[in-house]
Amino acid sequence: MSQRPRRRRGAGRKAKHAARLQAVDEIAGWVDRRIPYFEVLNEEGLELIENNAETVLEEIGIEFREFPRALDLWREAGADVDGERVRFPRGLCRSIIQRSAPAEFTQHARNPERNVIIGGDRTVFVPAYGSPFVRDLDQGRRYATLEDFENFVKLTYMSPGLHHSGGTVCEPVDVPVNKRHFDMIYSHVKYSDKPFMGSVTAPERAQDTVDMAKLVFGETFIQENTVVTSLINANSPMTFDGTMLGAATVYAENNQATVISPFLLAGAMSPVTVAGTVTQILAEALAGMAYVQLVRPGAPVVFGTFAAAVSMQSGAPTFGTPEPSLIVYATAALARRLGVPFRSGGGLCASKLSDAQAAYEAANTLQTSALAGVNFMLHTAGWLEGGLVMGYEKFILDADQASILGVMLRGVDLSENGQAMDALREVGPGAHFLGASHTRANFERAFYRSIVADNNSFEQWEQDGALDAAQRAHTIWKQMLDNYEAPPLDPAIDEALTDHIARRKSEFADRDY
Amino acid sequence: MSQRPRRRRGAGRKAKHAARLQAVDEIAGWVDRRIPYFEVLNEEGLELIENNAETVLEEIGIEFREFPRALDLWREAGADVDGERVRFPRGLCRSIIQRSAPAEFTQHARNPERNVIIGGDRTVFVPAYGSPFVRDLDQGRRYATLEDFENFVKLTYMSPGLHHSGGTVCEPVDVPVNKRHFDMIYSHVKYSDKPFMGSVTAPERAQDTVDMAKLVFGETFIQENTVVTSLINANSPMTFDGTMLGAATVYAENNQATVISPFLLAGAMSPVTVAGTVTQILAEALAGMAYVQLVRPGAPVVFGTFAAAVSMQSGAPTFGTPEPSLIVYATAALARRLGVPFRSGGGLCASKLSDAQAAYEAANTLQTSALAGVNFMLHTAGWLEGGLVMGYEKFILDADQASILGVMLRGVDLSENGQAMDALREVGPGAHFLGASHTRANFERAFYRSIVADNNSFEQWEQDGALDAAQRAHTIWKQMLDNYEAPPLDPAIDEALTDHIARRKSEFADRDY
Repeated sequence: MSQRPRRRRGAGRKAKHAARLQAVDEIAGWVDRRIPYFEVLNEEGLELIENNAETVLEEIGIEFREFPRALDLWREAGADVDGERVRFPRGLCRSIIQRSAPAEFTQHARNPERNVIIGGDRTVFVPAYGSPFVRDLDQGRRYATLEDFENFVKLTYMSPGLHHSGGTVCEPVDVPVNKRHFDMIYSHVKYSDKPFMGSVTAPERAQDTVDMAKLVFGETFIQENTVVTSLINANSPMTFDGTMLGAATVYAENNQATVISPFLLAGAMSPVTVAGTVTQILAEALAGMAYVQLVRPGAPVVFGTFAAAVSMQSGAPTFGTPEPSLIVYATAALARRLGVPFRSGGGLCASKLSDAQAAYEAANTLQTSALAGVNFMLHTAGWLEGGLVMGYEKFILDADQASILGVMLRGVDLSENGQAMDALREVGPGAHFLGASHTRANFERAFYRSIVADNNSFEQWEQDGALDAAQRAHTIWKQMLDNYEAPPLDPAIDEALTDHIARRKSEFADRDY
Repeated sequence: MSQRPRRRRGAGRKAKHAARLQAVDEIAGWVDRRIPYFEVLNEEGLELIENNAETVLEEIGIEFREFPRALDLWREAGADVDGERVRFPRGLCRSIIQRSAPAEFTQHARNPERNVIIGGDRTVFVPAYGSPFVRDLDQGRRYATLEDFENFVKLTYMSPGLHHSGGTVCEPVDVPVNKRHFDMIYSHVKYSDKPFMGSVTAPERAQDTVDMAKLVFGETFIQENTVVTSLINANSPMTFDGTMLGAATVYAENNQATVISPFLLAGAMSPVTVAGTVTQILAEALAGMAYVQLVRPGAPVVFGTFAAAVSMQSGAPTFGTPEPSLIVYATAALARRLGVPFRSGGGLCASKLSDAQAAYEAANTLQTSALAGVNFMLHTAGWLEGGLVMGYEKFILDADQASILGVMLRGVDLSENGQAMDALREVGPGAHFLGASHTRANFERAFYRSIVADNNSFEQWEQDGALDAAQRAHTIWKQMLDNYEAPPLDPAIDEALTDHIARRKSEFADRDY
């Protein structure tokens, strides 16, 4: 499962510099981390949280609602089932997970060069997910459409810092709710060759996702391999609902990956403290991931979490603040101790615009997520307004940050060339390094080049129109879409998909839920 | 020297929430760190750099220019002096520093409650330094004046996240170059009671700073205590010039603190690699700090560094990119191994505006500096355009980030209240925590409240004028200046200072250098 796919060596950083707006070919499939993890709790603190989470599981328990099969499985596994409330002997969930859940897994893409390994020392950057609105500088804020969805799939495909096509990159609200998953999956396959996420809004839509994946990858291939990773949110506090359990069950039965994600606004859906919130997250994630392993031992599962803090004044969610950062650092360490991949973070913000608030909040969350050791970084690019809006300009700005994090995670080159002692000897006191032979030999690969930052002089910047970052990002995404070329797709697969979609769509009436 | 001054316990976070725009009283003097340091190099990597730096000091050496006294001191200390080039036996600089330089020191403020301890597990946030221009949304970009200088001293005084008044918060270019230091020192004393920095643009101006400090603190007090911390930049690569050496010498002789700061744009003033640049920084800082200890063993000295990467395309400095972050992480670890306080980082950016570029770049640098373990964070607030511009709105936005970092550095509360097990038991599955007794007992202190972020609904935000973060920051700084009240200053000291300044200014002609 964790076998490493073929991959062009050394392609990562070079790609970023040479390739820029168009080139997709040279993209590395993920970032290999070569710096430590940052942790805010010591061994004793982590054990305290783990112990408290076991107390939550034992004494309070977790509700598995509207899904009797889950209760049966838990009863068989030795849990105490009381109505829909399940209480767990201490250590039960952990031992179930550790017996069979893979520490890392390959999610296959239709182009094998874009396969990702999720887990271990790797970071996979994924665009934002789930917003009903989009925003750009031309048209402002409006409901998202399928065209917007396709645009974000294309932009993600062209962004070297993003490794995964994501899932509901925005809600195509011009398509009926109960049929839009067909169009979303099709867009991911048609307009990108990066891996993608599946539908979770109903068990039958999860099954549709699996069925379409069979057409793309072949029926036998997906029995053995994971080709879809999907997002299963807990209904915090301490509840999983029938919709999410149904979708998770379909994916697990088909050996497809799920991200079990306590989704909480601390203070409202969890205690108003960091330690209390982390305890709840761990308890919920343990119960959810163990359930997946009961359905099919060995099915890939990711410990996910999404945590914001609510404003105690207005009740609104806040982002980029210190408490959610501490939550991510602590939770990532707990996931490592458990031995499963971890998902959190991204370019989260509450701002309505791609302004300084958006950027401070996003950068704080992105830095935290990267240093904490997030393996699957959903919401990396595009997120505005607490997730209500997918921003075109924000997407470009965040994708640039993903590339920055990619370079940082690779750490310091301590080779002889990296040490640069010859350069120091050649130049000496008071001179400059610009013309030194070491500089000339290395300048192509040296130093991250942003696609959107303006580092020119004030005078040059004024001559260029005195644009702010959002305005420059606006030009960039339009240019990218102009330059977009679809990756090749076998016409037989394309036809099979479109036929399948037409047939399935005709089988039931449109519905707006 | 490192004795802890009296300080109100528990004032820090509470202040942030209760006090907001006006209250200065409740401010903690610094942030006590309770989370680990983040390091990107292991023991072996750090030793490699240390070894290479000793090779630079031994083989290449450092130039001490236009300052014969330094050469004499180095000759006496056992270094090899060849013209102005000084080469050092391996380990000499390190042993000189470790013999006498304090690991931490108190910088006294005229209000003892604002004393700061620089070093150890503490972080002191300091505004930006040195810009000839200012920018605000009303008047755009223009040369700074003494009024601007005073404004930034007042705003810093009123910002709970900033602990230190800084130095040349902007250049008051309406005052002659050779006399403006008098007005700057006077402003720091008159309009704030936080500690401040001294002039370094000429040895006699350093002496003027010391003489004015004597009027404020008393002649005997400053013989025993440090009341000024000043910024001594190396003239990288591998050079200290007469001006900086002269100023450093005056401060050291008077037991005042200096920050010895290699200032370099990697690729131009240092090698084009992270490891090569860090090696050069360490060599320069070792030589500079050892020199200070030769002048007066025990004089407080801070290992400083300012490192940006130049764009290999345009030669322009770039900020918020991964390489300078790696440089800060590595250098902070080297400073800790040496056993001296560390200065770096801040809210650095290349952007001309308080836009998303400014914020991403600043946040990346601020997060890095905080996690790396910077003790004295110069340039925390206000920095725009590579340091050419001090921005009013940027100042407000950055000061908010300083408060965020302050909370994050304090880490996770693992007390029984922090664990919140009773809240989890009280609420249980599917309910919410907003009305829980634990939430009600803790909500006042829970979760950081930004003064500038808008977390309201889109509709509310539109009703409030659809302002971006810079526009909100604009309102805030104007309101702060309207609300400003000067801290009490003994009229006798005020008169002594103004008399002294008038006399000294009359003793020599104005000059524009």
